[in-house]
Amino acid sequence: MKDLKVFKIGGKVVENEKSLDFFLENYAKIEGNKVLVHGGGNWVSDMSGKIGIEVRQIDGRRITDAETLKVVLMMLAGLANKTIVAKLQKYGCNALGVTGADGNLIRSIKRPVINGIDYGFVGNVEQVNSESIETLIKGGFSPVFTAVTHDKNGTLLNTNADTIASVISTALAETYAVELVFCFELPGVLKDIKNVHSIISQINSNNYENLRKEKIINDGMIPKIDNAFDALNKGVKQVRICHSNDIVKFAQGLSDFGTLITI
Amino acid sequence: MKDLKVFKIGGKVVENEKSLDFFLENYAKIEGNKVLVHGGGNWVSDMSGKIGIEVRQIDGRRITDAETLKVVLMMLAGLANKTIVAKLQKYGCNALGVTGADGNLIRSIKRPVINGIDYGFVGNVEQVNSESIETLIKGGFSPVFTAVTHDKNGTLLNTNADTIASVISTALAETYAVELVFCFELPGVLKDIKNVHSIISQINSNNYENLRKEKIINDGMIPKIDNAFDALNKGVKQVRICHSNDIVKFAQGLSDFGTLITI
Repeated sequence: MKDLKVFKIGGKVVENEKSLDFFLENYAKIEGNKVLVHGGGNWVSDMSGKIGIEVRQIDGRRITDAETLKVVLMMLAGLANKTIVAKLQKYGCNALGVTGADGNLIRSIKRPVINGIDYGFVGNVEQVNSESIETLIKGGFSPVFTAVTHDKNGTLLNTNADTIASVISTALAETYAVELVFCFELPGVLKDIKNVHSIISQINSNNYENLRKEKIINDGMIPKIDNAFDALNKGVKQVRICHSNDIVKFAQGLSDFGTLITI
Repeated sequence: MKDLKVFKIGGKVVENEKSLDFFLENYAKIEGNKVLVHGGGNWVSDMSGKIGIEVRQIDGRRITDAETLKVVLMMLAGLANKTIVAKLQKYGCNALGVTGADGNLIRSIKRPVINGIDYGFVGNVEQVNSESIETLIKGGFSPVFTAVTHDKNGTLLNTNADTIASVISTALAETYAVELVFCFELPGVLKDIKNVHSIISQINSNNYENLRKEKIINDGMIPKIDNAFDALNKGVKQVRICHSNDIVKFAQGLSDFGTLITI
């Protein structure tokens, strides 16, 4: 079984030119099959403000009305995705930027209204077209996904980038030995959020319960880790949470960094 | 040799929801290999105005400064391209939206400053990566190009959509019998611009000289036709200029419409 690495970079990496360049230059150096998934939510908020669209969120989740969806397409599928693709091409990686609509790679359904909360044009993923993703990879392309999917009925849907990285990883786990990597602005899951040296190097089903009980893992991190366990239970080999600058360590073949999550 | 049709739709088709839907629904019905190239310049101008970027043109050609390039990426590679892809997917065409940066499909160089005119981030096409376009087509994807290329050095470049359609056609003419089709808001090249029934049904190297001398073909159409002859001289089988609504006639197997240009 061949290896495949699926990397997710968040908005804070994408929106900072220096951190983005550093990440992409080193991402290009990683050999073997790889897929990149990126966010860029602050660009959406900034542009919404510029053109007079109110930014509305509930529990940190964006409400995507029809006008906000247009801004998501502009900033994520357009500006962010193509900036990333052009930079990767410069560094020698044969990047090809896609949404879930392209090649029908990821089909989702519009999230239903629950408890009176209507998130608008937001997608719950239904199906990943893993064969077509493989066709791209085998064709020599390195897919770069932005956080947009579609319902196969003409509607594009704003979709959480962490979720996209997870569902791609699990769908491709049948064919590849997949490592899923969440890159963000901290060096891993921290015992003490104020101390960047307090990295929890391993989380597994044995110690996770205790880490939660003792409130060592904070609330914001719990959905990410639950997500990781879900991917592992569906066949993904390992999940890592690390700093975006740790990207250099992949090309160097190192493995002792960030937080490694296993079953 | 297999057939391939390359269609170009202009901004006026893209920007009118009804004409776009009609075009795409019928485009999806056309069997065989096909590539779509689209513009959308008015959306760029509208958004530029909205966010306070001055729209500057010389002889109808946009000056693309760094801020305008961002708007081009937002509106063409983002909003227009993904709207088209999602609609085509709805209609059963396995569309995959790309710029020339994706998969390094079209490499260009920044247009040099000539006679003191600096068009900014505008690309002159240098190379079409026809093998990779073929890989996509053979992989079951129907490529949808937007009017953006790159220099393989990290810079994206605004590029004329007619030119993109021509260079793709000529590059693929080695492998396919290519028909290049320019779809716009008129039923063909007209003898009298005020009379939509005055279509010139055939233009070839024999009658073109006369049509120009007698000023039957107006100035705005000349670059398009010169472009067509250039493509024909480089191996494209035929070039057609027709109304975007004529798209129905392709699925019906008709051939007696629009202006057909041959050598």
